[in-house]
Amino acid sequence: MVKIISKQISTYGSANVLRCSSSTTGRPQFPCLSPSPITIGQVLKIKAQQSTGIFIDRMEPIVLVHGGAGDIPASRVPLKLSGCKKAVNDGYKVLAAHGSALDAVEAAVRVMEDDPAFNAGYGSVLNLDGEVEMDASVMVGDRLEAGAVTIVKDVAHPISLARLIMEKSPHVLLGADGAKRFAINHGVQILPPGSLVTEQAKEALAYFKKHGGDFTEIGCDRKKGEVGTVGAVAIDSNGLLAVATSTGGISGKLPGRCSDTSQIGGGSYADNCYGAVSTTGYGEAILRFCLAHAVVKEIASGKTAQRATEDAVEAMTKQFNKTAGAITISNSGSIGIHFSSKRMAWAYRLKNEVHFGIEREQHEIEKLQN
Amino acid sequence: MVKIISKQISTYGSANVLRCSSSTTGRPQFPCLSPSPITIGQVLKIKAQQSTGIFIDRMEPIVLVHGGAGDIPASRVPLKLSGCKKAVNDGYKVLAAHGSALDAVEAAVRVMEDDPAFNAGYGSVLNLDGEVEMDASVMVGDRLEAGAVTIVKDVAHPISLARLIMEKSPHVLLGADGAKRFAINHGVQILPPGSLVTEQAKEALAYFKKHGGDFTEIGCDRKKGEVGTVGAVAIDSNGLLAVATSTGGISGKLPGRCSDTSQIGGGSYADNCYGAVSTTGYGEAILRFCLAHAVVKEIASGKTAQRATEDAVEAMTKQFNKTAGAITISNSGSIGIHFSSKRMAWAYRLKNEVHFGIEREQHEIEKLQN
Repeated sequence: MVKIISKQISTYGSANVLRCSSSTTGRPQFPCLSPSPITIGQVLKIKAQQSTGIFIDRMEPIVLVHGGAGDIPASRVPLKLSGCKKAVNDGYKVLAAHGSALDAVEAAVRVMEDDPAFNAGYGSVLNLDGEVEMDASVMVGDRLEAGAVTIVKDVAHPISLARLIMEKSPHVLLGADGAKRFAINHGVQILPPGSLVTEQAKEALAYFKKHGGDFTEIGCDRKKGEVGTVGAVAIDSNGLLAVATSTGGISGKLPGRCSDTSQIGGGSYADNCYGAVSTTGYGEAILRFCLAHAVVKEIASGKTAQRATEDAVEAMTKQFNKTAGAITISNSGSIGIHFSSKRMAWAYRLKNEVHFGIEREQHEIEKLQN
Repeated sequence: MVKIISKQISTYGSANVLRCSSSTTGRPQFPCLSPSPITIGQVLKIKAQQSTGIFIDRMEPIVLVHGGAGDIPASRVPLKLSGCKKAVNDGYKVLAAHGSALDAVEAAVRVMEDDPAFNAGYGSVLNLDGEVEMDASVMVGDRLEAGAVTIVKDVAHPISLARLIMEKSPHVLLGADGAKRFAINHGVQILPPGSLVTEQAKEALAYFKKHGGDFTEIGCDRKKGEVGTVGAVAIDSNGLLAVATSTGGISGKLPGRCSDTSQIGGGSYADNCYGAVSTTGYGEAILRFCLAHAVVKEIASGKTAQRATEDAVEAMTKQFNKTAGAITISNSGSIGIHFSSKRMAWAYRLKNEVHFGIEREQHEIEKLQN
């Protein structure tokens, strides 16, 4: 990994920003901090060097996760929060050991894929045939590398398969049997059919079939048994951004339905010039709005991570009258968290603090012992 | 279809723009002309009414197609151009008969799906197994409705299946066997296996297997037998925008590879507030760049259709060192056509003129008899 240690400082609008360019492509390398203004605050340690330049000593790493936006029943809140906290702590361990942002988001999402409190991996909701078909995507902000998988069955960790597709195939997105074949050819364990199906998911499908559904809160915790899409964004000590998102989709979906989570720009986007975003909520609306890409474009227009996340999520909600949520880390390490749904579980780890919430306006902090 | 006949005029920057809002969603209805300035020119007939408002009498309809960007051999130029001209004429017939922009782009793309000079439908390139797996997407600009299909086999017109998914399913994107099942359930004819395979496609795959491939110009006319993705954008007399894109992908692709063409925001995007865009070229780069969405965002920032198309295509090319092309119609009926590849066949029909080209700087006009 290239470590950028020197940046020129220049004036952009009324704020100082760091600019850096690749000599080969003209594209800024990570951690590109243009054109959004730097928040020289808690998350960025810089030391001055001469009047024309500065060193970035290191970025303070952060990992931020969500556990799905939706009408989450109060009874599910504790499991959601504990799962999110475990995910950020596992992701942070990677960052603290100087792992990359990509390693961290993968680790965090794998935790939630294993946890039946979330709609990803084990515990995924079922399609109309009663089967688990999963989607996942990863993206890395420096070169906009991306990998994704859609309609994949019997794989414990779709997020790792998405990464494998990014790293070992000439393609970005593989689906269905082709994705499974690629997984087998690369040594990924294929589980016996039905291994990822939980009783809770069966109950949710039965409920859907009995009561019908208007997909009002698809991809979310809508009724009993439905649980949320998961996602993680991270910035590592080198300033690299990455995102990972994983889902089982929606209960009662048609077989073969591909979600926003498999779409680069829908469920995931990371660009080291601006930020990394993972989304959750009403998948068909997110996909049509290109929500993750829209958040990044809002940052590109000069907004903070928080404002960009709020504005894009609210615009999508107004557009389609459907709810969603998103988590964002900008390239300066600023955080954006917003949801238009009733609840969205989220947590982030910064140094020895775990921040978390699930209700609107809720932001709690747990301090860990060093 | 709602026909908007009255708009308020207001001042945006230095240009007059039309604004209109839906009373239910707050989102502008078509033909929303905000915030990009109107080009009150050849394509828009308006008549003044009072000092505070105007009527839109009607838009002059246009249909614009591409037949794929790439290193197209000179020997293929005539068939590409004749195919594009036939497509725009068939699309225009729909518009002239007061059909919708959606009907027009579907008609235009169906012509190219039937024509083995293009890499879509019959004549699609083959995956490593020697099979045709196709992707297609449609989007309509007023409500951002979209439909798409990926990894679908044995369907003559994937573009019509994408439209069917938009209109008859709760989902946006279906793939693989699930998409085929949906097609069967809705009366779409499934062809005998191999029906879409041409000798030319077999030769291209054999060439790929013999010489290998770096996917430098995937999705395009790269070597013998490879032909281009197709797409169409249109604006109808009511000002509604629509886009349709269809492809067989790339010769020698892994089975299960999903292309940018199936991605809303990658291969297709339409928003009546800004414009409609269809892209072609190096699919994996287009997908990572969200090229169609990026063009629309450039229009949203105030650029013309042409400038927006140029800037986004060139930025993507610079980013990934891969070529692409895009065609755009803005909500004011302005046209954008640009490609960074050696060639891209394109044509559009406006009144009794067919405009077309395939080389850079080429823009020819044929006048038809009324």
